[in-house]
Amino acid sequence: MIFHADVRDAAARIAGRVRRTPMAEADGLLLKLEQLQHTGSFKARGAFNRILAAGPPPAAGVVTASGGNAGLAVAFAAAETGTRAEVYVPRTAPPVKVAGLRRLGAAVVQVGDRYAEAQEAATERAAETGALYCHAYDQPEVCAGQGTLGLEILEQAADADTILLAVGGGGLMAGVAAAVEGRAQVIGVEPETAPTLNRALRTGGPADVAVSGVAADSLGATRLGDIAYAVAARTGVRSLLVDDEAIIAARRELWTRHRLVVEHGTAAALAALRTGAYRPAPGERVVVVLCGANTDPSDLAG
Amino acid sequence: MIFHADVRDAAARIAGRVRRTPMAEADGLLLKLEQLQHTGSFKARGAFNRILAAGPPPAAGVVTASGGNAGLAVAFAAAETGTRAEVYVPRTAPPVKVAGLRRLGAAVVQVGDRYAEAQEAATERAAETGALYCHAYDQPEVCAGQGTLGLEILEQAADADTILLAVGGGGLMAGVAAAVEGRAQVIGVEPETAPTLNRALRTGGPADVAVSGVAADSLGATRLGDIAYAVAARTGVRSLLVDDEAIIAARRELWTRHRLVVEHGTAAALAALRTGAYRPAPGERVVVVLCGANTDPSDLAG
Ligand SMILES: Cc1ncc(COP(=O)(O)O)c(C=O)c1O
Ligand SMILES: Cc1ncc(COP(=O)(O)O)c(C=O)c1O
Repeated sequence: MIFHADVRDAAARIAGRVRRTPMAEADGLLLKLEQLQHTGSFKARGAFNRILAAGPPPAAGVVTASGGNAGLAVAFAAAETGTRAEVYVPRTAPPVKVAGLRRLGAAVVQVGDRYAEAQEAATERAAETGALYCHAYDQPEVCAGQGTLGLEILEQAADADTILLAVGGGGLMAGVAAAVEGRAQVIGVEPETAPTLNRALRTGGPADVAVSGVAADSLGATRLGDIAYAVAARTGVRSLLVDDEAIIAARRELWTRHRLVVEHGTAAALAALRTGAYRPAPGERVVVVLCGANTDPSDLAG
Repeated sequence: MIFHADVRDAAARIAGRVRRTPMAEADGLLLKLEQLQHTGSFKARGAFNRILAAGPPPAAGVVTASGGNAGLAVAFAAAETGTRAEVYVPRTAPPVKVAGLRRLGAAVVQVGDRYAEAQEAATERAAETGALYCHAYDQPEVCAGQGTLGLEILEQAADADTILLAVGGGGLMAGVAAAVEGRAQVIGVEPETAPTLNRALRTGGPADVAVSGVAADSLGATRLGDIAYAVAARTGVRSLLVDDEAIIAARRELWTRHRLVVEHGTAAALAALRTGAYRPAPGERVVVVLCGANTDPSDLAG
């Protein structure tokens, strides 16, 4: 479980390490441009908080398992804090992702065929060597770090009523919900094909779901984190589902109407407005969190 | 000639019509994200100000000559104000640009082989029909409209010392320089292959230059506007030159380090910092204006 105070502590800890990303207002929408964060996603916040909260880094450095944004963020935060980073990915990880991690100075270890195997190897390695294990979402420091984005939202738009954001493992949702508890409501948006929060809220706790679809590279966690579930239940976070077509259209709209490039998972939040899955009341101030842009922009041409 | 008061008047006139675009701070740079403006460039500001300053639109509507950002902006501002728009472009204009103008509701007229011929036809047409002619840069209302971007910069970064921006015909430069006169210095950045301001400052007035290079679609005016020259001379705007290689590298850096997509002309401003053409003093607060993103992002992949 995490609370508002944990997020405040995280903000003090990572100040100067992460970018304060801008808020844009356009066509009645507030857009939090977190895709402009270091390494292209909010994950840098949690990675810095996890590493800095642990005190002087162990000689073995930090270990994580992720071929995606969490891996990039840990590699970056490690390099910036002078810490060794080992990133475990499946042997099936795309070479371009492996190259990206290496460019940030991480040692990349390729193990197994699926993410679960890489994760198991990474936790074993951390246990053996004393390295600090950084989870992609289910650690208090990681969630609290992501929550610093929520504090910024309230500084930039004190009258925000509602925050729409994408949910995978739920670290972002948990952090932001704790940050804004009592001041704004948080709505988690998920692909129909990766409904981790939806399932957890319906069945009274995290449970495995099958994941697929265009946003699976960022929202493809197979179950909600325990911290995320606890915070969602305490603060009343709701889950809304959107389909791939709506996600693709929302990503395209962000480019054509706003000249913003985001990855598919990120576009889920706007898709919930466009499909009517979420209908704001008259005068309601809605913030849409744009949380990542590690995407190939080629298909946005024309 | 335009002055600070003209820009203030413009700001009052176009309030609510244009987006207040955000300022991002990252890695010691202030980035004014004007590429998020309606139609993807600052040109919407000048177009609204020109149309609204003229009072009730003539029955014949507005006429302009531009296959680029000025044309899109006039088409958009006309549609938003319920005004008929005719946009003259050469017969050689790319079909995708013509389609974009038509999508915004403009009547597109294709005349001649070069932009100069389209412009001549457009001014003749306006004279015949009584339509309001909107120039791409050399009208006081257009320059003053662009200058509203400068007022926003000072609201968002009151301690800004220096503003770097791209120059084509100089409407943006003139407006911003008038807006911030006495408070911040403006540096105009131009491709070596389209040095309109540079030439005007060296020879004591606007003169034709040959234009080419990667940024010619937005910075390809063949001479500086008279208003731009007058404001630059009065306020001491300087010109710095950058080559195409530096422009291409700066555009790529904005994507890889900041997840921002801009067009080549826009990237010239950052290129002046990266090449050392402009070297800020220690502690100097520099704003880089990102003024347009009407570009194909495909080449940014990978
Ligand atoms: C861009 C982006 N958005 C959203 C998420 C989901 O975050 P979380 O797993 O904390 O729910 C991720 C996770 O990788 C992401 O990279
Ligand atoms: C994106 C962009 N930047 C800069 C310019 C140059 O503006 P000006 O002609 O006012 O100097 C233009 C003009 O079209 C433009 O579209």
